[in-house]
Amino acid sequence: MIIVPEAAIADLVDRAAAFDAVEATFAAMASGDARNFPVVREALPGPEEALYGFKGGVDASAEALGLKAGGYWPHNLERRGLINHQSTVFLFDPETGRPTAMVGGNLLTALRTAAASSVSIRHLAREDARVIGMVGAGHQAGFQLRAALEQRPFEKVIGWNLHPEMLPNLEKVAAEAGLPFEAVELEGLRAADVIVTITSSFAPTLMAGHVGPGAHVACMGTDTVGKQEVDPELLKLATVFADEVAQSVTLGEAQHAVGAGTIAEGDLTPIGDVIRGVHPGRTSQEEITLFDGTGVGLQDLAVAAAAVRLAQEKGVAVEVEI
Amino acid sequence: MIIVPEAAIADLVDRAAAFDAVEATFAAMASGDARNFPVVREALPGPEEALYGFKGGVDASAEALGLKAGGYWPHNLERRGLINHQSTVFLFDPETGRPTAMVGGNLLTALRTAAASSVSIRHLAREDARVIGMVGAGHQAGFQLRAALEQRPFEKVIGWNLHPEMLPNLEKVAAEAGLPFEAVELEGLRAADVIVTITSSFAPTLMAGHVGPGAHVACMGTDTVGKQEVDPELLKLATVFADEVAQSVTLGEAQHAVGAGTIAEGDLTPIGDVIRGVHPGRTSQEEITLFDGTGVGLQDLAVAAAAVRLAQEKGVAVEVEI
Repeated sequence: MIIVPEAAIADLVDRAAAFDAVEATFAAMASGDARNFPVVREALPGPEEALYGFKGGVDASAEALGLKAGGYWPHNLERRGLINHQSTVFLFDPETGRPTAMVGGNLLTALRTAAASSVSIRHLAREDARVIGMVGAGHQAGFQLRAALEQRPFEKVIGWNLHPEMLPNLEKVAAEAGLPFEAVELEGLRAADVIVTITSSFAPTLMAGHVGPGAHVACMGTDTVGKQEVDPELLKLATVFADEVAQSVTLGEAQHAVGAGTIAEGDLTPIGDVIRGVHPGRTSQEEITLFDGTGVGLQDLAVAAAAVRLAQEKGVAVEVEI
Repeated sequence: MIIVPEAAIADLVDRAAAFDAVEATFAAMASGDARNFPVVREALPGPEEALYGFKGGVDASAEALGLKAGGYWPHNLERRGLINHQSTVFLFDPETGRPTAMVGGNLLTALRTAAASSVSIRHLAREDARVIGMVGAGHQAGFQLRAALEQRPFEKVIGWNLHPEMLPNLEKVAAEAGLPFEAVELEGLRAADVIVTITSSFAPTLMAGHVGPGAHVACMGTDTVGKQEVDPELLKLATVFADEVAQSVTLGEAQHAVGAGTIAEGDLTPIGDVIRGVHPGRTSQEEITLFDGTGVGLQDLAVAAAAVRLAQEKGVAVEVEI
């Protein structure tokens, strides 16, 4: 089998490769070719207060089968200088069940999460979108912003964060792209044509009144029961898309709006249906579109499979016997 | 991290090592130190008709965390000369979440399943047990019998199989141990002091009338909803133990007796309570004891961790960067 260590990923998988892998996966999920397995997520005993689990799936169209295993060790950085999110992707041959690859999953997770909002922007944002607004300015926000900036000829980045001292993270990414950055109050986000939310919030931050007509909103932070980034009223105003509808309504942003009866599960469309041309996506310049990106195992398998292919092409794949 | 390939397992993990690992794990499960995670088990699309999934767990007492991934590819042998059961064990450091080992899981699965009935015989069979009866004569039956024979000074092996032409499999293992083998009808199993059932049956085979007083019965074949090896009345007659009670009553042999109300979930005792001295186990020479071995992920982690330790001791561990 092939090993692609964490340290090799940065030189193998770029944003374009992650984008293509995630876009194809979303389409396969919507067509029924690909399916995520039930997620296992467990709190571990002991002083590390870690969360650990498995996200698996199968994509018949890509001959991909496997899982991402790992989780969140909240004290890794402070206690031992390791990153808090730790994950590894394991791929299997769907024809034989033999393990085919083990791939470091940390950078891949950041890339596939950024690719998801980027895919939603390509397929749902207005073509004339020029201002992008960020809610959240942590480590992952930089990944989301970099990937988003490639989808439209944006001219300006605006951003808000609960802790304003982190906003220079966004300013730095904007500067890399030669764009001006402006810190705004939440109301100021009405000027944005695209908004990406990427926080760990447990209460709504972005309210319906903070979003202008014609905007596309990608909600990327809510991946757990109880988390919430946006006002359920916004989901009512918007045309709502999700990576996986079933997960969106149980642990994604839509859990709140559907739980409260503000919208129904049937109001959500898998973004894969837009990608494969079954749903028109945005139909007017005034429509608000909203993408609920909850993060699914198939995204991890897709980018890991891309990493393996690229490692083999570049001759850097490590082969071991198992 | 360490790789222990499938081909290395036979020279590393013997029956004694598997026994010790599984016995310690059962005790840790009963004490609350160890816990299995929800099992993921999925039918895959396509012509291979494969079942695939994950069995994970954490054992704080052994600092073990991880999963076995793999499943059953029913056409592997006929179509490509590979074994049908394919699995790999992945271990993680509970302190950091970093992957620590990948271990070939095929032989380990056979060894840990054999170890489970062997543990039950050590702790529950009469000391004067001399006749062992087998129900089932397939590939795994040989593993169960070899491990069982080490627990008492058995003098005779008797056996029944739906397809009698497979009984020489048992005769061969008996002969290795210098013991006579006799093929019997199911009624003939009343002569056995220990009975191990290891079939893929979906209907009861071993009835209450086929079991003599004082026998210990280890039911090892039922690991799925719908499978069944023994008469629910036998569970009513017997003192019933399980590897994991919750799994025993949902997908183990006890699913039928508990489902029909013949016995209650509270009638089952985790065998770990016998191992750690909290439950007396057998209390008379006439009592029938029954162990429902459903197979849990923690068994796989335990034997895989043993394989890693032994590989390191013998200097055959392969180290790779991940």
